[in-house]
Amino acid sequence: MTSSVNIDPGASRRLVIVGGGEDRSGDMLILRRFVELAGGGDARVVVICTATTEPEELGAVYEKAFETIGVSEVAILPIASREEANAPDVVSAVERATGVYFTGGAQLRIAAILGGSQTDTVLHARFDEGLVIGGTSAGAAMMSTTMILGGSDTVPSVGHIRTGSGLGFVSGVTIDMHFAERGRLSRLLAVTGMFPHEVGLGIDEDTAVVVEGNHFEVIGSGAVTVVDAGEVTSLHTPVDDGPIAMTGVLLHVLPSGYSFDLSTRRPVITNAADDVEDTAQRD
Amino acid sequence: MTSSVNIDPGASRRLVIVGGGEDRSGDMLILRRFVELAGGGDARVVVICTATTEPEELGAVYEKAFETIGVSEVAILPIASREEANAPDVVSAVERATGVYFTGGAQLRIAAILGGSQTDTVLHARFDEGLVIGGTSAGAAMMSTTMILGGSDTVPSVGHIRTGSGLGFVSGVTIDMHFAERGRLSRLLAVTGMFPHEVGLGIDEDTAVVVEGNHFEVIGSGAVTVVDAGEVTSLHTPVDDGPIAMTGVLLHVLPSGYSFDLSTRRPVITNAADDVEDTAQRD
Repeated sequence: MTSSVNIDPGASRRLVIVGGGEDRSGDMLILRRFVELAGGGDARVVVICTATTEPEELGAVYEKAFETIGVSEVAILPIASREEANAPDVVSAVERATGVYFTGGAQLRIAAILGGSQTDTVLHARFDEGLVIGGTSAGAAMMSTTMILGGSDTVPSVGHIRTGSGLGFVSGVTIDMHFAERGRLSRLLAVTGMFPHEVGLGIDEDTAVVVEGNHFEVIGSGAVTVVDAGEVTSLHTPVDDGPIAMTGVLLHVLPSGYSFDLSTRRPVITNAADDVEDTAQRD
Repeated sequence: MTSSVNIDPGASRRLVIVGGGEDRSGDMLILRRFVELAGGGDARVVVICTATTEPEELGAVYEKAFETIGVSEVAILPIASREEANAPDVVSAVERATGVYFTGGAQLRIAAILGGSQTDTVLHARFDEGLVIGGTSAGAAMMSTTMILGGSDTVPSVGHIRTGSGLGFVSGVTIDMHFAERGRLSRLLAVTGMFPHEVGLGIDEDTAVVVEGNHFEVIGSGAVTVVDAGEVTSLHTPVDDGPIAMTGVLLHVLPSGYSFDLSTRRPVITNAADDVEDTAQRD
């Protein structure tokens, strides 16, 4: 039962932040990347189902997925109460893990049940030592310091937006998920208009950002839309209802293979990005 | 039967481009503005229902709306075929009008039925003389030189986008409608990525841009999202499927009262825009 995977204490902090709807039965590209970062076949994966009220069903899906990928040790933890979040067997399972994956559901459940618990403390301590943390949908939203709790997808109104404290594994960003699928530009714009010091990350379904230190790479079938309101030259955010006004928002759409530097707030342009393919039909 | 409203030959070309779903029975702010520009109570309004396959139903709604506003002369023209688009009584009704309003439906019907017809010719001639042209949804999309015909709302993929020739009352823009409601950022980004010389206008429902010359003002309950890909520093548009990559897109969100200069591609910052209201709750 001793660890065969050494977690490098000096390693960059690593997160796999998924926009929801990741493939869990096909090529499972995103889950495979998570496992690879967590030690491959030797990974010890813990799945935390706190966000969902149907932990058994969802837990079984992830158990099967990670076993198919070849993870020998998978533990499914429902953690549905603060008592459970402080239970010694739960805490020691998280302590042993090389990768912890958060399912979808309601992000407020994650904060309210885990926030400040023994599990939360151990998660942060182990994260600093190299534990890989993954999360999808609600499990993605809670990664940041300030998280989106709710708000109409399509009405760009400050009065509709609710935010709160996430678990804070990454700072300087606000994460929205199911981004293209639910048309959430307005909502992410409203949040970045309120908090322009945070870069907005709109992550499509079956798409993830793989954070290593201050840098992230996009993987998966969709794209990540980066909304940077840091250079907004004019802003009008009504206190309650009514649409916002913002001029000079910078936007980047980054599909698989593209990277972004969170410290400079700039995309990392690689060779792939220099290609401008001909969009016209070729004969 | 002679005109009591003189159309000024030197007037700026005027368009009311509506994102669909404009109020037609309440305060009718957008329709009222259209009527006001077309001469108020003395306006002679023609409603062209070519885009819809249910012209009687939709025509009756607009007839009642314009009569409620106080327009004394309203003509509903179904124009469902090229024969009708060349019929002398149709052409003379358009010739007499001070305002022509296009209903929603399918924008390709407008192009295929009206394009190059006598009605089209007269519309352009009268438009140059000051005729006000309004259009909602499909009737908005067809206003530009290049129009969006279709394409998945949420998949930012060039292969899914279909464009074609609009009737060309305004150049330099591509118009998308039901913008926030249907989450169409991806689609508008894909189009502006392909044609960065065109500014993308994403118009929300019950929202309109009122174009006068090279300038437009936003009215209505939603916002207009301006997507400017002219300074994109890196672009990758796959020929067929797969998401696009774009870095450095400039975005402006303009609600009611905000203006935009189409020649400089910049928002016009007024006093209203300088207010940054406090978003925090006040005690």
